[in-house]
Amino acid sequence: MDTTQKLIERREHLLGRAYRLFYDEPVHIVRGEGVWLFDADGRKYLDVYNNVPHVGHCHPRVVEAIQQQARTLNTHTRYLHETILDYAEELTARFPAKLENVMFACTGTEANELALRLARATTGNDGMIVTDHAYHGTSWAISQITTCYTPPDKRASNIVTVPAPDMYRGRYAGDPEAANKYAEHVRQAIEKLASNGHCPAAFIVDTVFANEGLPTVPDGYLKKAADIIHQAGGLLVADEVQPGFGRLGRYFWGFERHGVIPDIVTLGKPMANGYPVSAVVTSRHITDAFSRQAHYFNTFAGTPVGCAAALAVLEVIEEQDLAVKSANTGDYLIEELQNLATNHDMIGDVRGSGLFISIELVRNRDDLEPAVEETARAVDLLRERGVLIHSTGVFDNVLKIRPPLVFDRTHADLLLQELSDVLGEISCPGPRNG
Amino acid sequence: MDTTQKLIERREHLLGRAYRLFYDEPVHIVRGEGVWLFDADGRKYLDVYNNVPHVGHCHPRVVEAIQQQARTLNTHTRYLHETILDYAEELTARFPAKLENVMFACTGTEANELALRLARATTGNDGMIVTDHAYHGTSWAISQITTCYTPPDKRASNIVTVPAPDMYRGRYAGDPEAANKYAEHVRQAIEKLASNGHCPAAFIVDTVFANEGLPTVPDGYLKKAADIIHQAGGLLVADEVQPGFGRLGRYFWGFERHGVIPDIVTLGKPMANGYPVSAVVTSRHITDAFSRQAHYFNTFAGTPVGCAAALAVLEVIEEQDLAVKSANTGDYLIEELQNLATNHDMIGDVRGSGLFISIELVRNRDDLEPAVEETARAVDLLRERGVLIHSTGVFDNVLKIRPPLVFDRTHADLLLQELSDVLGEISCPGPRNG
Repeated sequence: MDTTQKLIERREHLLGRAYRLFYDEPVHIVRGEGVWLFDADGRKYLDVYNNVPHVGHCHPRVVEAIQQQARTLNTHTRYLHETILDYAEELTARFPAKLENVMFACTGTEANELALRLARATTGNDGMIVTDHAYHGTSWAISQITTCYTPPDKRASNIVTVPAPDMYRGRYAGDPEAANKYAEHVRQAIEKLASNGHCPAAFIVDTVFANEGLPTVPDGYLKKAADIIHQAGGLLVADEVQPGFGRLGRYFWGFERHGVIPDIVTLGKPMANGYPVSAVVTSRHITDAFSRQAHYFNTFAGTPVGCAAALAVLEVIEEQDLAVKSANTGDYLIEELQNLATNHDMIGDVRGSGLFISIELVRNRDDLEPAVEETARAVDLLRERGVLIHSTGVFDNVLKIRPPLVFDRTHADLLLQELSDVLGEISCPGPRNG
Repeated sequence: MDTTQKLIERREHLLGRAYRLFYDEPVHIVRGEGVWLFDADGRKYLDVYNNVPHVGHCHPRVVEAIQQQARTLNTHTRYLHETILDYAEELTARFPAKLENVMFACTGTEANELALRLARATTGNDGMIVTDHAYHGTSWAISQITTCYTPPDKRASNIVTVPAPDMYRGRYAGDPEAANKYAEHVRQAIEKLASNGHCPAAFIVDTVFANEGLPTVPDGYLKKAADIIHQAGGLLVADEVQPGFGRLGRYFWGFERHGVIPDIVTLGKPMANGYPVSAVVTSRHITDAFSRQAHYFNTFAGTPVGCAAALAVLEVIEEQDLAVKSANTGDYLIEELQNLATNHDMIGDVRGSGLFISIELVRNRDDLEPAVEETARAVDLLRERGVLIHSTGVFDNVLKIRPPLVFDRTHADLLLQELSDVLGEISCPGPRNG
């Protein structure tokens, strides 16, 4: 493909070498609609990967909201405007009563930055506990808690990690005491912080542990961890950038699944279907503690256009009943994937909730050797067959399913068929090693 | 105004107390067009303050670009797309040849975060030199160099400041050796960094020193400072978030005015007329150094919609000749403001370039006592007369003029008339103290 090669060269020439593309043969997408993406040759791809276009690529309601507001007014939060308030009202109505204040930012990174400032201001502490192999963002401070990229020797002494719970291959897999044992690591982390001279400001956790591979978490773990961090004077920060807004089906937010109410919730990616909007939702005593130390302003955050887009997303989720649909399609897909596992030994584990599902591929089911190369090959083969999917997890052997929420059973069937064929192709003896 | 009061209460209830509004009697803006903002009662305000709607509030070309792209596709930089490349090509064409790579972020804060990462990766150092009373953003790392908010005792040992040059009230005002003397502070800052155990990664500077009050800078200062930082192995980072994109009239970028080429340039606010887009422009050897250490991805940055909006802004600047118009209107306004100063002793200094102009108000011209209360009162009285303007500077006694670039002579005349009346009212003996 001559055009593709030219675009790749132009990219490197103009953007430098730090940018990466998906796939050895990158896709040149020119149009999107619902769960479909179309390349420059008119080829269509089922989008099983992108969680930002939450209510579907180019949803007309969101596009219309952006257009109407963009041609009317776009200013900032130092003038009065109703839309930011209408949205904050709609958003907080979906949270437990104590999470009553919304503060806006533009990216998940910025929301997590703000959460850390709030936690520090409220507790007077600066210690941070975070899971291993977590992703929380790209700024300097947030890269310190993005433990999948920043190695231990590059982290400051106020950052301490705990293992992410994992009932499939984690250290307490199968242990009925796993929740207590994992929570005990939080207590040890607090002790380690103390020995480093820090008290805990917060334990921050992606409530589905997405970057850790969406592991199954023992019941009660997060509740116990929250109690421990609270007793030590710290806060629980729930990073809901990926799990939030109904993706999990029966749970509008990931923390609900754990039966716990966080002190601070951070939101991002799907919030405005791709318009850069993020936020922190928290309690009044926390915004009060912060406001005694600082004012807050972010030029592009909480603007009329951003809030109009975010409001349209909430309305579409409700009117199209997307959380319920996500639950139903997700249940169906998980069941069918488990059926698929009876024919494909490589499927070691299927887990998730709603339309956030992971498939862990293993070379055998005895020692759970991660099928790393096979996972990469499955991603490539599925792309060849017009299905866009990607991998994640500590070993990068987990296929990650998190499509726009308009993904329905017919799309699930298509994915199941292609995945079955691809796994068959990979496991067959053939020209490649393995 | 009952509605206003209700909105204020709703805001505090929903957003908490850390948000601030402009004016004791905040304005409730519902519509914008060109240089005009309209409140809920249909009252119209001349916008002399807002630099984000660079080519005018709700410019139809930008709105159309956003709408067209939003309904076609909005993805991310891991797929190939032409618009990011078309924009990067148009943007780098406006820079000296060595500034040939563009990396995208969403906010000015994020662009400065990225600039620091690039500077650290390239130099291997972590020392930062920054001016006193500077504003560079809101994240943890960037708040460390936002010296107007973070006091010296809250800054880490790798942050050292130098005085911002100021030929009106600065320590070397009137001194023909001022450029050398100010630059000498950069040398001293490098020594101080060394005594703290750090080598310099960068000297970062807003090239108009906007937050410092837009001071007149002695010729050659930045060139000398750049030489000194380069000799010490550091980079010059030009924060062009406020001065960039033709606002200065004869200079498309603020650094041009100083006859210097920075190593890294950061861009933000006006870049896409309010759509959250920011960027770093730099040299290949710098993006190469970074890419040897890390990949780069920012979910909402460099998206098709953001780049379409930014491209439309560049096209409008060119087609409507806005930089030249900014130069002409700015020259006229500066001349008329200087004429106004002959009738109003309170006007101590008028300075700036293009449509970035400041008026420093003083109680008298002998000891330059800052007219702080009078400046606040002028801002309020102008708002009552339908002119939105604000103050800045170390003493907050500087009126800041930075309207959308479609601000023309008729708008300038209106501002001049209202300002003249307001300054007359303030300086007259009346019921208030003074």
